[in-house]
Amino acid sequence: MKNNVNRQFRLKSRPVGRIKTTDFDLVEADIPEPAQGEALVRTLYLSLDPTNRIWMSDMDQYMPPVELGAVMRGGGIGVVVKSNSPAYQVGDHVTGLTGWQDYTIAGEKMDNRMGVIPKGLPVPLTAMMGACGMTGLTAYFGLLELGQPKAGETVLVSAAAGAVGSVVGQIAKIKGCRVVGIAGGADKCRYIVEKLGFDAAVDYKRADWKEQLVAATPDGIDVNFENVGGEIMEAVMARMNLFSRMPLCGMISGYNTDQPMRADFSPILMRRIQVRGFIVTDFFAKYAEGARQLAEWVATGKLHHEETIVDGLENAPTAVNRLFDGQNMGKLIVRVADPAQH
Amino acid sequence: MKNNVNRQFRLKSRPVGRIKTTDFDLVEADIPEPAQGEALVRTLYLSLDPTNRIWMSDMDQYMPPVELGAVMRGGGIGVVVKSNSPAYQVGDHVTGLTGWQDYTIAGEKMDNRMGVIPKGLPVPLTAMMGACGMTGLTAYFGLLELGQPKAGETVLVSAAAGAVGSVVGQIAKIKGCRVVGIAGGADKCRYIVEKLGFDAAVDYKRADWKEQLVAATPDGIDVNFENVGGEIMEAVMARMNLFSRMPLCGMISGYNTDQPMRADFSPILMRRIQVRGFIVTDFFAKYAEGARQLAEWVATGKLHHEETIVDGLENAPTAVNRLFDGQNMGKLIVRVADPAQH
Repeated sequence: MKNNVNRQFRLKSRPVGRIKTTDFDLVEADIPEPAQGEALVRTLYLSLDPTNRIWMSDMDQYMPPVELGAVMRGGGIGVVVKSNSPAYQVGDHVTGLTGWQDYTIAGEKMDNRMGVIPKGLPVPLTAMMGACGMTGLTAYFGLLELGQPKAGETVLVSAAAGAVGSVVGQIAKIKGCRVVGIAGGADKCRYIVEKLGFDAAVDYKRADWKEQLVAATPDGIDVNFENVGGEIMEAVMARMNLFSRMPLCGMISGYNTDQPMRADFSPILMRRIQVRGFIVTDFFAKYAEGARQLAEWVATGKLHHEETIVDGLENAPTAVNRLFDGQNMGKLIVRVADPAQH
Repeated sequence: MKNNVNRQFRLKSRPVGRIKTTDFDLVEADIPEPAQGEALVRTLYLSLDPTNRIWMSDMDQYMPPVELGAVMRGGGIGVVVKSNSPAYQVGDHVTGLTGWQDYTIAGEKMDNRMGVIPKGLPVPLTAMMGACGMTGLTAYFGLLELGQPKAGETVLVSAAAGAVGSVVGQIAKIKGCRVVGIAGGADKCRYIVEKLGFDAAVDYKRADWKEQLVAATPDGIDVNFENVGGEIMEAVMARMNLFSRMPLCGMISGYNTDQPMRADFSPILMRRIQVRGFIVTDFFAKYAEGARQLAEWVATGKLHHEETIVDGLENAPTAVNRLFDGQNMGKLIVRVADPAQH
């Protein structure tokens, strides 16, 4: 890898279905020079998330889609290698929208600011993108603020071996709930029960998954933390209790299509379910509280942080498909550069 | 009409599609004798509501479906004609589940108690089933508790010329909102704007209704009080704003089918909409507050109470179809007996 260029993935075409490498141009640009009030950041890790797929499309979404020809948007962790700003010291680790590239510029304004990670944290750096970062905060606020689980209630989470789902289930266990996860394959199902302490797992790759779901939720479902949408969501909603809550975090099963993500609304009416879509930034004002709690749980071993690391920026476009194929466990990360060498 | 029998509509078969008279047996039963702690109530008015159709079916619902062979369930107003209970005086007007019959027994227990209407109310008796009764309370709590409209926001209501919708829109106007109603036909659209004071109407019977909807909601929609479901609901949701609210009161367009009531969930996710299904009894503890406020608005002319009255118990099964055909304005009522003669 050349150190004197800035490799960038620029979006060439909006993917149809599964993401293809030909949807991007990998270009070698000059390393940018930070102006006054800016710093140059070397990307160390990229966080791969379902929302990357949304940003590549022009569907109705949270933020403007990535424009064709622009550097692919993505969250990550970097290290400051040059600084013309008192906000950043050389050697600082920072988090923010690094983009799918080797280098980026961090500034002091709302739209280009990056967060400096405090030194001496009792958790691994990569956990700051996972269980202690945006992923963990998504689980924390979605479950606790919108799901409002009470001890003894049944919490169900789909994509349960994934980055968000695995944290949701563990927090629900900490809060004294019965926790049921839906995951694909025997390995993942064993993992969430044996390693993460879920009470039951439903393997959606088995033909009898609906019967498993019924058997695993004898008292119905009080909180459904929804990640996948589609047929699984409908089956789960059919098990939801009167006055139950449904934080709608994602509908990953629909992101590779351009079809409306339709499902039956009648359980909402008949069972008086509260459904609320959200993204983590809705809870920006409470980040510090959530991050402190998550770091404490990780540091004390109450919250297990699982990650899948793929080496090399060049593999980002293929690696992101693992999220949709059900091939990864925990937080999916691309290592762009070795932190020990920067 | 014979006065010495109790005519009853008993459910013979679960309707398929539109309700047919052959779905019921009209039988002449003996007038029941009230036991100690009970009263005999002569039905004066029946309230016809979309929920009647739900109760006839065996879909997943709020209450158990009406069993085949049982008297059709329905709300109404009656007068006490015999009493063996200190809770009821002969001549009292009462509200509750009279059923589709001439006479019923009111008791003192939770499951057969009826509410005594205070004497000397400043509103017509029938308003106690409509704007000042369950219908009005449905509008009041759904809009104010779940919709949380703020002055200046845009409130949209479907089935806007109906019993609930017409009250929703008027309360939203009292609260200082821009109010848009969806209704079928020029007469209803004129009525909700000219008589009820809505800011705009969308006529769903015109081919350009989607364009009308866009034109009527230049600032999007902050509260969608949902009554109809289906294609109209999807079009409305596509206009809803970030952090908007959607009290889900009904999906009348789906009640005559046995299909799942599917619609696109993605606006909930992307726009972080809060959707909550409800029925009026969810707010039982606050009924007195709501009823007092509604009666004051009706008595002072701020809230217009519209009703369509059909004469004769024998017409109940055909009259209820008007709710689904879009043929009625305001509260749909069957007059079973003349209050002046009882």
